[in-house]
Amino acid sequence: MTIRDLLFGRPLATSMERAEELGTVAGVPIFGLDALSSAAYGPEAALTLLIPLGAAAVAYAIPISASIIVLLIIVYFSYRQTIAAYPSGGGSYTVASENLGVYPGLLAAAALMIDYVLTAAVGISAGVGALVSAAPSLLPHTLSICLGILAIIVIINLRGLRQAGIIFMVPTYAFVLSLLGAIGFGIFKSITSAGHPHPIVAPPPPATHAVQAVSAWLILQAFASGCTAMTGVEAVSNGVRAFRDPTVRTAQRTLTLIIGVLIVMLAGIAYLVRAYHITATDPGQAGYQSVISIIVVAVAGRGAFYYIAIGSVLVVLALSANTAFADFPRLCRAISQNGYLPDGFNVRGRRLVYSQGVYVLAFLTGALLIIFGGVTDRLIPLYAVGAFLAFTLSQSGMVAHWRRVKGAGWRRSMIVNGIGAVATGITALVVVVAKFVHGAWITVLLIPMLIALMVFVHRRLDRAAKLMASDAPLDATALQAPMVIVPIRGWGKAAQNAIRFAVTISKDVEVLHIVDECDPSASTLQQQWPALVEAPAQQNGFPPPKLCTVESPYRLIIAPIIGHILEVARQNPNRQIAVLIPENVKRHWYDYLLQNNRASALTALLLLKGHQRIVVVNVPLDIGV
Amino acid sequence: MTIRDLLFGRPLATSMERAEELGTVAGVPIFGLDALSSAAYGPEAALTLLIPLGAAAVAYAIPISASIIVLLIIVYFSYRQTIAAYPSGGGSYTVASENLGVYPGLLAAAALMIDYVLTAAVGISAGVGALVSAAPSLLPHTLSICLGILAIIVIINLRGLRQAGIIFMVPTYAFVLSLLGAIGFGIFKSITSAGHPHPIVAPPPPATHAVQAVSAWLILQAFASGCTAMTGVEAVSNGVRAFRDPTVRTAQRTLTLIIGVLIVMLAGIAYLVRAYHITATDPGQAGYQSVISIIVVAVAGRGAFYYIAIGSVLVVLALSANTAFADFPRLCRAISQNGYLPDGFNVRGRRLVYSQGVYVLAFLTGALLIIFGGVTDRLIPLYAVGAFLAFTLSQSGMVAHWRRVKGAGWRRSMIVNGIGAVATGITALVVVVAKFVHGAWITVLLIPMLIALMVFVHRRLDRAAKLMASDAPLDATALQAPMVIVPIRGWGKAAQNAIRFAVTISKDVEVLHIVDECDPSASTLQQQWPALVEAPAQQNGFPPPKLCTVESPYRLIIAPIIGHILEVARQNPNRQIAVLIPENVKRHWYDYLLQNNRASALTALLLLKGHQRIVVVNVPLDIGV
Repeated sequence: MTIRDLLFGRPLATSMERAEELGTVAGVPIFGLDALSSAAYGPEAALTLLIPLGAAAVAYAIPISASIIVLLIIVYFSYRQTIAAYPSGGGSYTVASENLGVYPGLLAAAALMIDYVLTAAVGISAGVGALVSAAPSLLPHTLSICLGILAIIVIINLRGLRQAGIIFMVPTYAFVLSLLGAIGFGIFKSITSAGHPHPIVAPPPPATHAVQAVSAWLILQAFASGCTAMTGVEAVSNGVRAFRDPTVRTAQRTLTLIIGVLIVMLAGIAYLVRAYHITATDPGQAGYQSVISIIVVAVAGRGAFYYIAIGSVLVVLALSANTAFADFPRLCRAISQNGYLPDGFNVRGRRLVYSQGVYVLAFLTGALLIIFGGVTDRLIPLYAVGAFLAFTLSQSGMVAHWRRVKGAGWRRSMIVNGIGAVATGITALVVVVAKFVHGAWITVLLIPMLIALMVFVHRRLDRAAKLMASDAPLDATALQAPMVIVPIRGWGKAAQNAIRFAVTISKDVEVLHIVDECDPSASTLQQQWPALVEAPAQQNGFPPPKLCTVESPYRLIIAPIIGHILEVARQNPNRQIAVLIPENVKRHWYDYLLQNNRASALTALLLLKGHQRIVVVNVPLDIGV
Repeated sequence: MTIRDLLFGRPLATSMERAEELGTVAGVPIFGLDALSSAAYGPEAALTLLIPLGAAAVAYAIPISASIIVLLIIVYFSYRQTIAAYPSGGGSYTVASENLGVYPGLLAAAALMIDYVLTAAVGISAGVGALVSAAPSLLPHTLSICLGILAIIVIINLRGLRQAGIIFMVPTYAFVLSLLGAIGFGIFKSITSAGHPHPIVAPPPPATHAVQAVSAWLILQAFASGCTAMTGVEAVSNGVRAFRDPTVRTAQRTLTLIIGVLIVMLAGIAYLVRAYHITATDPGQAGYQSVISIIVVAVAGRGAFYYIAIGSVLVVLALSANTAFADFPRLCRAISQNGYLPDGFNVRGRRLVYSQGVYVLAFLTGALLIIFGGVTDRLIPLYAVGAFLAFTLSQSGMVAHWRRVKGAGWRRSMIVNGIGAVATGITALVVVVAKFVHGAWITVLLIPMLIALMVFVHRRLDRAAKLMASDAPLDATALQAPMVIVPIRGWGKAAQNAIRFAVTISKDVEVLHIVDECDPSASTLQQQWPALVEAPAQQNGFPPPKLCTVESPYRLIIAPIIGHILEVARQNPNRQIAVLIPENVKRHWYDYLLQNNRASALTALLLLKGHQRIVVVNVPLDIGV
């Protein structure tokens, strides 16, 4: 078992695909972690904006949460239908591009890609933020912890979906159960005390007195921030194919479970905020405590239960990035199948994962984390835009779908999706307007850039494919064996091996000896050449290879070889040139580090600087070391 | 001009080497930044350890600094002689390995490598620490800023030495002048006030009352910490070759300038600490202020001068990592010339820099910064060990050198170096003992591991070289043209081009068509084969290539090709197999991202999994896209 096997698991055959599929129980942690965990920061994001209202903020928790829950229910019914209509995976991209056209599809794709990258970065840094606020001594290590978690998520994802589900099951269910437990217990205490429960630990007083009167604009802002609680809801519809038979039913049941739990949590949090008079604390200031933490302390005190609940919040937040890792590669694959992203996104790796999507997401997430030093609060406004844009396009696409396909009860379905489209569309607009100056403009700017990039990729790939196509029969006229050039650094087994191969493929063989300006071995090899090479070649019926010596200043080995080859190519405009590069067989991974990689460098440079007539031949030599 | 040229500068020819050499003025920033900047943290490190003494600590600043200065003077005279004796670069490694033997040399090499990596990391993070303590809102971005500075230093270094010298000149001289200015002004005020100067801003009171009585052990600890002020002194002797003619004189003058300024700064700081009753503040605590900052504020107040001084301290600290970047690659090169590190360290890049050393150092420094979250205070104890071990070995080597070489005044020279060896040897011991539990044990552990690694590298390289050597004449018996296999994914220009080359080099050509299980094109190509390929080949006198179809499950393209090739190789144990891989000429950098890299992957895998009989031929096709 290699280190690679240990880290990423043994390779899986395609036939094992069925065994990698998910049921409802494993599906929730994988496709629901993002949606569920947003209960931990969505309400907080809304309440933070209400801080200027002082104690009065409490009154607005319930109406804002209620509108978000209504939106959530609308979106739920819309996506249920989408899953049924697109059992092979109906992400916003697929639905929009199939029903609305290429550009709306690319718009959805760009919005989703941005959303996923931001989700991954914000999830990890929110989890680490929770950890750091619990253990302030870790503060200087924020970024390193973020990157460590990112690495763990990447490794888990490269191992395959099913294992990820199993690994994430424990923290997900711990989170759901402990949060629901706290909410239930809080509601029970509130009811038994006639709506005036006595907190075990009093919540911190409002950060300020009311410095600002309530305004529609402020409430709109808070609503827009609270909408981040809805991101991640589209994940299930993207990944339908990953579910077990009956695929559609399993996926729908998973979606129901996720959204049901999310609604209960959002409603419960809003109720408790009201009942316990909880206001948010300022995240940038000393004494900051998250809303969830205030609630749990108020309801249950700072005992073992508190640590389990807060611990699971932390883990779930950090791992919510995993949803992005489950979906982003599938999204990229769908886009690349239509030719708008490179073909590499369509290749499954050894564990049946679309590895390249995982790498790209890991790179972008890591870059964001490093740029923002692991504190990505300021990114939160950016990412509701992408999510709601994708929602809207997906729902609008479904409306077009029903109009086109018709089928049983299509009118009712169309109305459901239509309501979803309108509701999410309005929300998207609200979010863009409310958050424009806070960073939504970046998303608005990035989306057309991404679309332009994908169109560019499509054009290049399309053009290349057209130029590569040909139905003509083989043109075998005017063919001639290539001129062979064998660059060597001295006489030895590598040179002998390469020359042995060279003489079998052509009559024109030139050995190119690169020598230092003051190296005596040059003239020695020149003198010995007849005995070493020419005589044995002629005895066996081969034309004798020529020796050509090129002097080179000490630091350069590759440049004079390439110069010579290009010169030979220029002088022989009708010949192909085959460059034979002796290369050692590397039996150990460390051989790649130990042996000089001039052979690979030369190969790469020749393919880069050379042209169609220069063929590169790697002749391996196994010295058994 | 490409992006690469813009970032790293245009390539330099070897003949331009002289123009890249340094005078004294540019040499100080490059080879002295590390030594000079340590004035900013050495005294502070010593004083921090004296915090438990309360106000009494002030009394020990002068004796501790005095002993460090004496040590510095001893080391100065020793290294002056080393430079003269080793004009081609007499780093500790060279001197120790030439005079004391292979293992003492490797010991010095390992100690220095550890020292340089730590210097780079500690320098950057100390600079950023100063910045962050000036602007606390940047605290969360500590690591990102560290990595950003690392990136800048790497880019500057890849541009070449001379440019680095010019770029670093301004902050270096600003630092030296402003610190010397503050010291001079402070001493003037102190003298004019009969030794009791009135600080403009009073230094913070001692952090604690004397909670601990003074002990020899504590003073030893403080001395050991203060010795970090001496690291970086060996840099000039390592890089003598980089200086302008007369090389030795220029290098010696640079060394004199660096050590002279350093001594003045250390003495001045000690005097002012005493005169102004300055004690260190605890770096981990709120209200932390660096000793330099306290001194400058006390002497000159918090005006424009303060910001210039502290700003230059910050820049110089952050850039002190550059000394490591100037020296580490030269050290690795010297080691690789003796065969104890891979040959790659000996290759100069396009700007005459030993690029691979820069990469390795950048990677290790970046890793350390990430692991420690950009706060590397805890690494400081580790790195005086390496520095003093290297000092000792270098001086001992010089003693052996004089005994062997003799020459004019050799006895006097030997005594100077002997005193240096004894003094630095004792200090190294003191540092190891005083700092053992604080982290010096890590260095003590790492050094033998590094030595073992270098010995392993040497053994492997040596063995490979022996196995590759051969004086025998060419064995041209029993040679036969190879069997050629051309894997294609379909008929088109790529396939045509590859087959055209294939028929010219061998009579046995097999075209391997990989098809999906349910792809109809398989049978189509099979039917058209006689017309498309066989007929044109035969008409031109070539034996017709065979077509072989291999079915593959949809996700795999490379695996069945390799399986087939290995099978053919097994069935033909006496033949060479040439695998022709069609590859597109890539004209733009983005083509590498756009086009699938299956060709490169196949090449790499064949060279990995294949053996000596399998030759890989890359046939480029230029479609002019």
